[in-house]
Amino acid sequence: MSGRHRHEPTVEEFVEGIRNGDRRLLSRAITLVESSRPEHEQLAHEILDRCLGDGSASIRIGVTGAPGAGKSTFIEALGLDLVRQGKRVAVLAIDPSSSRSKGSILGDKSRMERLAAHPEAFIRPTPSSGFLGGTSPRTHETILLCEAAGYEVIIVETVGVGQSEIVVNSMVDFVLLLMLPGSGDQLQGIKRGIMEIADLVAVNKADSGRQTIAENSKADFEAALRLLPEKHSGWKRKVLLTSALEGSGVSEVWKTIEAFAAAMQQSGEWNEQRREQSRHLLHAIAEEQLKRQFYNAVRVKEAKAEVEQQVLAGKLSPFTGAVELLKAFRSDRSV
Amino acid sequence: MSGRHRHEPTVEEFVEGIRNGDRRLLSRAITLVESSRPEHEQLAHEILDRCLGDGSASIRIGVTGAPGAGKSTFIEALGLDLVRQGKRVAVLAIDPSSSRSKGSILGDKSRMERLAAHPEAFIRPTPSSGFLGGTSPRTHETILLCEAAGYEVIIVETVGVGQSEIVVNSMVDFVLLLMLPGSGDQLQGIKRGIMEIADLVAVNKADSGRQTIAENSKADFEAALRLLPEKHSGWKRKVLLTSALEGSGVSEVWKTIEAFAAAMQQSGEWNEQRREQSRHLLHAIAEEQLKRQFYNAVRVKEAKAEVEQQVLAGKLSPFTGAVELLKAFRSDRSV
Repeated sequence: MSGRHRHEPTVEEFVEGIRNGDRRLLSRAITLVESSRPEHEQLAHEILDRCLGDGSASIRIGVTGAPGAGKSTFIEALGLDLVRQGKRVAVLAIDPSSSRSKGSILGDKSRMERLAAHPEAFIRPTPSSGFLGGTSPRTHETILLCEAAGYEVIIVETVGVGQSEIVVNSMVDFVLLLMLPGSGDQLQGIKRGIMEIADLVAVNKADSGRQTIAENSKADFEAALRLLPEKHSGWKRKVLLTSALEGSGVSEVWKTIEAFAAAMQQSGEWNEQRREQSRHLLHAIAEEQLKRQFYNAVRVKEAKAEVEQQVLAGKLSPFTGAVELLKAFRSDRSV
Repeated sequence: MSGRHRHEPTVEEFVEGIRNGDRRLLSRAITLVESSRPEHEQLAHEILDRCLGDGSASIRIGVTGAPGAGKSTFIEALGLDLVRQGKRVAVLAIDPSSSRSKGSILGDKSRMERLAAHPEAFIRPTPSSGFLGGTSPRTHETILLCEAAGYEVIIVETVGVGQSEIVVNSMVDFVLLLMLPGSGDQLQGIKRGIMEIADLVAVNKADSGRQTIAENSKADFEAALRLLPEKHSGWKRKVLLTSALEGSGVSEVWKTIEAFAAAMQQSGEWNEQRREQSRHLLHAIAEEQLKRQFYNAVRVKEAKAEVEQQVLAGKLSPFTGAVELLKAFRSDRSV
């Protein structure tokens, strides 16, 4: 992106373009956010600083569930429903890239093609490499940019059954957990923590002919939810049956989300949660910067080779070695 | 664990007890490792410093796979095979606790009861709360303690299909991925990164009557593996069929692990990988300590309330706020 090849917009141009809904400039700003180059990060933060405070009218929805639960089909069905209602929808979708190389095992499938073609929808694959299954401070920053661009519904897809859901919970207003019908094994394997952060459970793929098994699963999940502490005092979680493929249950999910938003705004928990999210982002960014300063500090760099050598030779334990590196950082004045 | 209630062993007593295979002292030392109290951490590191360098004869095996793939049944079958051969086996098993409260959804099942009852086996649930699905520097430190206690095979169970596998890959010699037969959805959902870190894929639950579907899955996974870059130059990954329930295939898995160890030791990659693991632990501990120093620094504590308030009021962006906190830390002399 050197100036010789194409015009690099100024911060002013980025901010104005994003606010006017220019998708190309929004995309370029997200690319800056995701970049690891210091000059891009600097520019990204200048843009973000100017874009803050525009998100009060948005709703941020995290959609989680095990691989195969039908997350992208569901998100497309919900997104199409919403754009038909005149809403502007941004989806931060999982990019099925790995930590070591690009691309999914079976090749990239075209995902959410119909939604992607809609002028009021914006779909952005978020890189899952290097951080917790695709949710990171970068995801949070991307949400802020989409809000500045006027997207009213931001859907964040997260992969897997692990820590990434806990992280996404720190940046969305509402968490939807998609489950498959009839999976006793799956229920056993789903950790309680994942259920605990869900505001709504949808038994997805409850297609025609599978109603009985889906109803049974619904009863199982309802029983499981009853055992959990409440997440929000003003909200009672529930379980819905959906078939994204057949289009059933999707509008009920949206109605539930609207009811949730109304209840939370009334109780004041909505704003409290948004404040908590800002605090979380502040700390996440501070910790990232701290780590970077540590590894970039001249004294740490000097000490590292020697400490590593001694640790690898078995002369120094990793614990004592770490203490040495910390001492080097505290005596450093280079950063 | 105050001295009034029971005798607190000295570092010397801990180290001697662990080296003599005293399971009670080993358990207590692991509890110290897992403790977040500074005095426990200090003691844990003194014990660990003295226990280093005893692990050269061990083999560390990571067992991963989606919930429901049969990890604990498989580990018990493999462990029983090994103790019958006279080997001493330690298992760091997933503790199905959540990030917000204890216990699995459907209550704790008794896990690996038969293996747990064997005198040459040691089973320790590792807390999964707060860190990546149960693998953390604490897990690595627990491996080191088990090795000092003379366990020759250390099996680390990891949950889920996410980042925890990448982390476990930084502390084990061999990664076994358990998959279920016939799960097209699952193959699609498994991220390439998980396949890439596997040294062996076992299609588990290939029970009698499911051979055809299991054979088909085997062919699918073999095709997927052929598309991946190699993980170790001296090792060609393969796919085996196993039924932990019926006991088939388990000894083939162990033979494969032995062949892997022989090949890696011959090529020198074994030692290189162990050195890389030590380096990784050094950095992980340093980063943990760094974060703790940051939040404990007097100037950071002073600045934090003000910065947070401004961020929450929308007067300061999280990015600019983070820069302020970092400045406060760099000017601090309290830690």
